[in-house]
Amino acid sequence: MKRKLRMGMVGGGIDAFIGSVHRIAARMDGLVELVCGTFSINPEISKESGEVLFVDPSRVYTTYQEMIEKESQLPEDVRMDFVTIVTPNFVHFDPARMALENGFNVVIEKPMTFTLEEAKQLKQIVEKTGLTLALTHTYSGYPMVKQAKAMVNENKLGKVRKVIVEYPQGWLSRLSEREGNAQAAWRTDPKRSGKSGAMGDIGTHAAHLAEYITGLKITEICADLNTMVEGRLLDDDGNVLIRFDNGANGVLIASQVAAGEENAIKIRVYGEKGGLEWIQEEPNSLYLKWLDEPKQIYRTGGAYLSNAAKHNTRIPAGHPEGLLEAFGNIYRNFILTVSAKLNGETPTPEMLDFPTVDDGVRGMAFIDNVVASSASNEKWTKFLV
Amino acid sequence: MKRKLRMGMVGGGIDAFIGSVHRIAARMDGLVELVCGTFSINPEISKESGEVLFVDPSRVYTTYQEMIEKESQLPEDVRMDFVTIVTPNFVHFDPARMALENGFNVVIEKPMTFTLEEAKQLKQIVEKTGLTLALTHTYSGYPMVKQAKAMVNENKLGKVRKVIVEYPQGWLSRLSEREGNAQAAWRTDPKRSGKSGAMGDIGTHAAHLAEYITGLKITEICADLNTMVEGRLLDDDGNVLIRFDNGANGVLIASQVAAGEENAIKIRVYGEKGGLEWIQEEPNSLYLKWLDEPKQIYRTGGAYLSNAAKHNTRIPAGHPEGLLEAFGNIYRNFILTVSAKLNGETPTPEMLDFPTVDDGVRGMAFIDNVVASSASNEKWTKFLV
Amino acid sequence: MKRKLRMGMVGGGIDAFIGSVHRIAARMDGLVELVCGTFSINPEISKESGEVLFVDPSRVYTTYQEMIEKESQLPEDVRMDFVTIVTPNFVHFDPARMALENGFNVVIEKPMTFTLEEAKQLKQIVEKTGLTLALTHTYSGYPMVKQAKAMVNENKLGKVRKVIVEYPQGWLSRLSEREGNAQAAWRTDPKRSGKSGAMGDIGTHAAHLAEYITGLKITEICADLNTMVEGRLLDDDGNVLIRFDNGANGVLIASQVAAGEENAIKIRVYGEKGGLEWIQEEPNSLYLKWLDEPKQIYRTGGAYLSNAAKHNTRIPAGHPEGLLEAFGNIYRNFILTVSAKLNGETPTPEMLDFPTVDDGVRGMAFIDNVVASSASNEKWTKFLV
Amino acid sequence: MKRKLRMGMVGGGIDAFIGSVHRIAARMDGLVELVCGTFSINPEISKESGEVLFVDPSRVYTTYQEMIEKESQLPEDVRMDFVTIVTPNFVHFDPARMALENGFNVVIEKPMTFTLEEAKQLKQIVEKTGLTLALTHTYSGYPMVKQAKAMVNENKLGKVRKVIVEYPQGWLSRLSEREGNAQAAWRTDPKRSGKSGAMGDIGTHAAHLAEYITGLKITEICADLNTMVEGRLLDDDGNVLIRFDNGANGVLIASQVAAGEENAIKIRVYGEKGGLEWIQEEPNSLYLKWLDEPKQIYRTGGAYLSNAAKHNTRIPAGHPEGLLEAFGNIYRNFILTVSAKLNGETPTPEMLDFPTVDDGVRGMAFIDNVVASSASNEKWTKFLV
Repeated sequence: MKRKLRMGMVGGGIDAFIGSVHRIAARMDGLVELVCGTFSINPEISKESGEVLFVDPSRVYTTYQEMIEKESQLPEDVRMDFVTIVTPNFVHFDPARMALENGFNVVIEKPMTFTLEEAKQLKQIVEKTGLTLALTHTYSGYPMVKQAKAMVNENKLGKVRKVIVEYPQGWLSRLSEREGNAQAAWRTDPKRSGKSGAMGDIGTHAAHLAEYITGLKITEICADLNTMVEGRLLDDDGNVLIRFDNGANGVLIASQVAAGEENAIKIRVYGEKGGLEWIQEEPNSLYLKWLDEPKQIYRTGGAYLSNAAKHNTRIPAGHPEGLLEAFGNIYRNFILTVSAKLNGETPTPEMLDFPTVDDGVRGMAFIDNVVASSASNEKWTKFLV
Repeated sequence: MKRKLRMGMVGGGIDAFIGSVHRIAARMDGLVELVCGTFSINPEISKESGEVLFVDPSRVYTTYQEMIEKESQLPEDVRMDFVTIVTPNFVHFDPARMALENGFNVVIEKPMTFTLEEAKQLKQIVEKTGLTLALTHTYSGYPMVKQAKAMVNENKLGKVRKVIVEYPQGWLSRLSEREGNAQAAWRTDPKRSGKSGAMGDIGTHAAHLAEYITGLKITEICADLNTMVEGRLLDDDGNVLIRFDNGANGVLIASQVAAGEENAIKIRVYGEKGGLEWIQEEPNSLYLKWLDEPKQIYRTGGAYLSNAAKHNTRIPAGHPEGLLEAFGNIYRNFILTVSAKLNGETPTPEMLDFPTVDDGVRGMAFIDNVVASSASNEKWTKFLV
Repeated sequence: MKRKLRMGMVGGGIDAFIGSVHRIAARMDGLVELVCGTFSINPEISKESGEVLFVDPSRVYTTYQEMIEKESQLPEDVRMDFVTIVTPNFVHFDPARMALENGFNVVIEKPMTFTLEEAKQLKQIVEKTGLTLALTHTYSGYPMVKQAKAMVNENKLGKVRKVIVEYPQGWLSRLSEREGNAQAAWRTDPKRSGKSGAMGDIGTHAAHLAEYITGLKITEICADLNTMVEGRLLDDDGNVLIRFDNGANGVLIASQVAAGEENAIKIRVYGEKGGLEWIQEEPNSLYLKWLDEPKQIYRTGGAYLSNAAKHNTRIPAGHPEGLLEAFGNIYRNFILTVSAKLNGETPTPEMLDFPTVDDGVRGMAFIDNVVASSASNEKWTKFLV
Repeated sequence: MKRKLRMGMVGGGIDAFIGSVHRIAARMDGLVELVCGTFSINPEISKESGEVLFVDPSRVYTTYQEMIEKESQLPEDVRMDFVTIVTPNFVHFDPARMALENGFNVVIEKPMTFTLEEAKQLKQIVEKTGLTLALTHTYSGYPMVKQAKAMVNENKLGKVRKVIVEYPQGWLSRLSEREGNAQAAWRTDPKRSGKSGAMGDIGTHAAHLAEYITGLKITEICADLNTMVEGRLLDDDGNVLIRFDNGANGVLIASQVAAGEENAIKIRVYGEKGGLEWIQEEPNSLYLKWLDEPKQIYRTGGAYLSNAAKHNTRIPAGHPEGLLEAFGNIYRNFILTVSAKLNGETPTPEMLDFPTVDDGVRGMAFIDNVVASSASNEKWTKFLV
């Protein structure tokens, strides 16, 4: 890299949650500087956020439209290189579209858009512009997830037969959306969140993780979505039976009413010769289980790990890395890719290892499919994209 | 108790697996002596087993019919009090029936019979004779499972919303039934095992555990049974979506091709106020998770535990108890019940806390229902008994 | 074995703790029957214990002297084969001595005697009589401890450099000996327990475990014994620096005031090439750690385990075994040894794998040495036997 | 804060390890920009490091003397605010001294200096200049360590009786200093590292953690330092018995030859009413153990945590934070303190919660004391500062 990349933000004001995570992740490796933003629909909060974040007040904008227009007019060596979009789901597509059409690369929160149709449009725009879009399916950024993917890919487990992926949370066990919880309010509101609650918010993470690690594609599903808290407008819980394209079966569980759980996303993959298990809350261990040999624990930083795992690790074994570093890995790979392209170089496969618009389309399709399946009396429905 | 109870065995020769477990469990508390048996269909093995087990050769029989007849003719203070049946599933019903009809109490391995019809008949016979039958759903014998049940029952978790129960094993990851593994051979053979493999062998344990702890009943299911190893005749894997009678949803996973797993039966129950988790391979801890309080670990032997947990514990906290003790708890409670009845006393609720013929009927219904559901294109099917 | 062995007990009445553990352990494998006992110094309790344990009232004795005398006079095929001594420490030596001198084998609780001098005498008597004495250092009976020993012995870790062994308990965090706790009362009483409290009761277990697994001998120590609860008469806590005979160093920690701990005995051994860790409260896992390879978890029942581990395992992998089975292993090996000798056969090394009078002498020497070292201003003192 | 602080570095070139950790930690919260440095004694590496780090080439210096002089001459709103010193130990004192004397605040790696004498001088300079010095005892930056300290401080455990702190690593199990490992080379070289190896490098961390959490001071020690790898010049292993100023006893273990261990620093504190345990490799859990209540797991992000824990947490519960965030907490608190002072404000206690020159003096005293104790035949030696 010849220089730091310049980052703008849509959303992520000081009253929000995920914006701060994006900034820490983006900053971590010293490859980015935050130069502009429209941090909130509330101009006061946006302005105050800009101050706290040491952004030049002249580049704190009122709307994303204004930001994209004005930044476009700045000299090439001043204007932002990419924009991070961390607004509620219903305000994902349009700023992303507009950014891309004005020549800006994009980092975007999942689910990528409000509807599958928007997702498909966005894919076309990305392809047309040749720009880079990263989707922050954070969990795929962990070194031990990379290791898991590498081991499945190298056939260490043999043919995959079964995948169990689950994402239990407990934070929506009460009707918090009526108790002043702003996060809960928009995430359970179909007008802002989309047609699914738990499945859109965390089920998409689980589905992505399963496909990412195994390299398989979901082909058929049988979904049971539930709204367990009375008065809630969207699903807060669901279970999905899965068939994959190689004949493997699977179970996906996502719940926001698993009282007492934090963020317990976990995956198990079983093949003919062995199984693996990864638990996000203890992310630096990957458990390998074998038919006739002792179990193994692979650990972040181990000398025996794959190149992909090593590329995404910052510190030696025994110094735990966490979610912010996993998030940072998505940013770093995205940045390295954008930089390479800016410099006329071809990004390496390791640089390109981050979720893209294709994953975003697949995530939106996942939402559509599970909602449809859950509403159907038919047992198995094809997974359509 | 005034005396030890006298035990006979059908099956459980020295070449078998589960017979030895029954004997250790039965012996553990010094309340039983093994007095007779027909330990194998192979008379040589039966005889040799009798010798190793220090059974009087005159009471080592060739068939269960012979055993039951001849024992019936012995003086009341000599003949066996109960018979333990540990043959393959297709030889459960008839010896149980005949034992009961001749006045002997019964301990029987799960699944209780070969067909649901037999199970219902057996229930009638038990009721008619007034004798006692214990079904060895071992996992319900663990102290921390008792504790879990007590806490759900006391509404500590609030109304139950979700149950995830799983039983992954890996021991049938290969086609072991063709490689000289006798256990694998009969358990995967529909003529000896019944209409289901994994679901009959271990799915029934999982279903029982879920209903035992929660006090709920399964009312609807959506099952996906799979045969993952080519050439196998029965399911070796399955996933079931569940609805319970209080509106809770659930997932049940049972697999014998989860390569590298040992006996990883585990249950999670989530209610409105908190959740619990129990993992059989680390059975002396029960994890409690709360909405706004620190997680807790309840431990076998703790002074704060329920009476049910304490009644089923033999040694102080920190000295791990295991499967044999859990198994022993089923035997002990069965024996205390039988002794009380022999002495004209009323068994206490704690004595009566072991799986009975009713659980056996329910287990056989579970098999019928999952097999039917899996074969159906209908999404949800009623759980019929 | 041609027959069950006949067991007598000194101590272990129904009001005691460890007697019941011995009985379960002894019974577990169906190789023993309890035929006589003097279960308490209180004749009423002794008598009542005999009834509950289904012992012929004519063989429930008032004193151990009476028992040994009368049993000696019974016909050879009736009288007891061995006696288990589970009285407080100050009543270990004499019944053991008398039993041996009258031709009875002995199982005895640790610490073996009240003084080192007694221990040495007992060793002479055992050697003179040629009889068998087993000392119940329970933790050495676990399958994964056997595995650990086998791996160190096979040099899998390279030369041992460091041993950390610890035994924290919290049950004496209060002055329970003044609050009616009978266990606490005698164990903290120098007249009944001996010259050390925590070090005698649990430090000896830790020292034995370290020497058993590593095959090394303690040669020098530097001990710091403490009485942390005011009013207590013996040490309830202590830390010991150790040097072993191969140049390895070590740390031994034993505490009964580690509030909140149950029975957390744990050992770590580090060699040139790797390390191992075993934790009694999760006894079926043995952790192996390597310089450049993934960590491993060896599990009870694994096909890859040593013969010693397999010989001491009763059920397949994934069915947890616990303290009672470990205890049972000591009994079983003792019984197999005694039986072999009774039948004029030579016990195999696997049968002989239980703690003996030599371990008892070493344990008593450990107590003497740590007490002396703790009282000394000298840093390192030789470990004298 | 009105602006980002400007950071300079002494050491930490792209060929080093810990420099990168400091930069990530410093950058994480967007409160710092790296403006200058002398990154290596090798000018080429220093220059190249400057480029990679996007530092203005005119501010990449050849020596720290040059850097401090030239930066002093820059305008107040351009020159660095603080300097981070991450050179080997023997080059800590002089740059720190010179920086302070020229008006620059300091962040410095532990152990703070090469000798205790230097440490005391540095303390005088800090006091004289009124500037701020932070010492990166990283582990005290973890939220759950803050929680542990808060709970001990609030007397939740009762009076502390026992502390067990350990820091096993395995990375020096071989004579790596002769095999081209640069880290190993200087850390085992008394001319660059100081008079102790393992105790200086990691024993100081353990001692600091124990005193930080408990609020107690070590008053007497009995140390046993060892060099387990032949040919090594400094201790690579050691065990220390401890007495604290309230009468509590302790054990401190530090080893770099604990083969297979990564960075397994762990602490246990036992009081009259309960105990706590924290394990760095799983840093987001704090285990609380109670005399008569279930164990508890406190988790980073929990609503029930202390203010200190919350102040040092960036993301909600269930998203693991790791070493970089703990490191970042030291930086953030240091920066907030420096900023407050620059703005004429009084730093809050939460801002001031980072290790200071006093901890550095104590750490150097720890090294002196353990080395002296280990060489002495006296059992207990006073801890002198």
